[in-house]
Amino acid sequence: MTINIAIDCMGGDCGVSVTVPAAIHFIESHPDAHVILVGKTELIKNVLEKSPHDEERLSVVNADEVISMEEGPAQALRTKKNSSMRIAVNLIKDGNADACVSAGNTGALMAISRFVLKMLPGIERPAIASFLPTHTSQVCMLDLGANVDCSAEHLFQFAVMGSCLVSSSGGCSFPTIGLLNVGVEDSKGNEVVKEASQLLKQSSLNFKGNVEGTDIYKGTTDVIVCDGFVGNVALKTSEGLAQMLGKYLKEEFHRNLLTKVLGVLASPVINHFKKRVDHRRYNGASLLGLRGIVVKSHGSADVYGMGFALQRAYEEVKHGMLEAITSNIQVPEQKEL
Amino acid sequence: MTINIAIDCMGGDCGVSVTVPAAIHFIESHPDAHVILVGKTELIKNVLEKSPHDEERLSVVNADEVISMEEGPAQALRTKKNSSMRIAVNLIKDGNADACVSAGNTGALMAISRFVLKMLPGIERPAIASFLPTHTSQVCMLDLGANVDCSAEHLFQFAVMGSCLVSSSGGCSFPTIGLLNVGVEDSKGNEVVKEASQLLKQSSLNFKGNVEGTDIYKGTTDVIVCDGFVGNVALKTSEGLAQMLGKYLKEEFHRNLLTKVLGVLASPVINHFKKRVDHRRYNGASLLGLRGIVVKSHGSADVYGMGFALQRAYEEVKHGMLEAITSNIQVPEQKEL
Repeated sequence: MTINIAIDCMGGDCGVSVTVPAAIHFIESHPDAHVILVGKTELIKNVLEKSPHDEERLSVVNADEVISMEEGPAQALRTKKNSSMRIAVNLIKDGNADACVSAGNTGALMAISRFVLKMLPGIERPAIASFLPTHTSQVCMLDLGANVDCSAEHLFQFAVMGSCLVSSSGGCSFPTIGLLNVGVEDSKGNEVVKEASQLLKQSSLNFKGNVEGTDIYKGTTDVIVCDGFVGNVALKTSEGLAQMLGKYLKEEFHRNLLTKVLGVLASPVINHFKKRVDHRRYNGASLLGLRGIVVKSHGSADVYGMGFALQRAYEEVKHGMLEAITSNIQVPEQKEL
Repeated sequence: MTINIAIDCMGGDCGVSVTVPAAIHFIESHPDAHVILVGKTELIKNVLEKSPHDEERLSVVNADEVISMEEGPAQALRTKKNSSMRIAVNLIKDGNADACVSAGNTGALMAISRFVLKMLPGIERPAIASFLPTHTSQVCMLDLGANVDCSAEHLFQFAVMGSCLVSSSGGCSFPTIGLLNVGVEDSKGNEVVKEASQLLKQSSLNFKGNVEGTDIYKGTTDVIVCDGFVGNVALKTSEGLAQMLGKYLKEEFHRNLLTKVLGVLASPVINHFKKRVDHRRYNGASLLGLRGIVVKSHGSADVYGMGFALQRAYEEVKHGMLEAITSNIQVPEQKEL
């Protein structure tokens, strides 16, 4: 079976100069993949002409409009019906693509995906999920910013979706779930979190109880659930801290001639370290809860990073992530019977 | 003027073996400081006997009970009236100490301090504030966990208190303030944050608008305000990430004989880096909004780290932090007139 992935070629900071080469590399390493390049045909073809590629597995769909990073989601939804992002999502709805990847405006991508594809039955709110590295492996964290206010039921549904994402990403079949809180004790947290904890305890999910911020990178559980405000802050705080530590380390090795020499000597070790913590390897956040697979790449992703976003979309299709969510989201309803 | 600091000698993971030596070091470097050691006299004296010290500036107050790290705040408040923590806080109330430092149970310290000292006039909720390193300097962040649910007015008051803490810690006199949010645009965030933004805009504070998680370590503003749930998660996420990166770096230098040799060669640089990011230098969180200066040390602090918590308490007394809050918290009341 061929897996068809539509890519919004105009999205992100670099547009076609990143998206098109990433698509070419991707089909080279995935013999069962077909990528549909959506955007301004002329620009896409300019890049394609420069790189040898398998024409059978790369097609181009024209889109005249582009949604900017600054555009409001409602405005983008209403006025940009011929944008590369909108047409890429339409391809899923029309059955011409199995998934779509965009490095464009997150709010617009969420609004368009929700409007065009609709929600899966039983899911009240979509969530943004991403994998993060841990001491030993990786953790799936959600929501990372789609919902700034969540009910306990929303958090519960995020847990179901996160669990399905992990098990359909080649992870374990019965992923452990942690609820992000300010302490591990049951008495900790706000009312929403306490209520969500009760729902999770009563469910058939592999719920391990409350976890704290320190547990994210410890890899205490396979999935960490939180509302989008908290998740977004945790993710961006991590990004900021990693940048600062990287800058400090670089400054220390550039302090004087001796430290520069030591830096050159230690470069094999430092480079291996950098490779290990390279955030590009975790690029690709899943928009979960929709009737279609939509993956958001970081706006600043390069060709290497974009490849991981394509890989995420590919895996979700291949491992039947949507079917897994659909069959598992019944859990709360069965519980109520 | 002598600055009297009471220290809960029994608090923290190591009790007297950390608190007493830290107090001895502290008075050596602060000729105007007097430290009151509160705890089991026998244990304290055992440590004092081993270390030469200025007996004039170290006194001991006996306390027979100890509050454990696991004890519930309400239970500790009700049943442990002779605990070292309670007696240390009582010393402030009775005018025998200007400030108190404890590495004990945070919830109990907050409950006892609030009960014994009461809140400053006009302040509705206490907050936990701490300084964190940034690319260029440091940032004061609050609340870090005292309040899991906050109103816009609470966030506004945190901004006033954070501003006073920075200006009375030798920082700038008119600190810039950022409101932690999921985006910088006014349209972003939940209702509480949007309302808090309006209150801050109308105030005489140096409000710079919304900031994101990445801004914390960038040092975009001098103060960052958030509710205690978000702040606690951001802080603990940072702690977890820093631990993971530290472990990775160590592992890379221990990979084989060659990397070990490179590690030894690069050690002056790595050690300088470690010193720069040493979290112990930021030990000491201020419990703000109380009628007294109370500083919480990390439970695992060593003698070096405990010194910074003592230093924080000392500076808050010296620079009149309480008086600054008292005179500035009138701002919202004046506004309403």
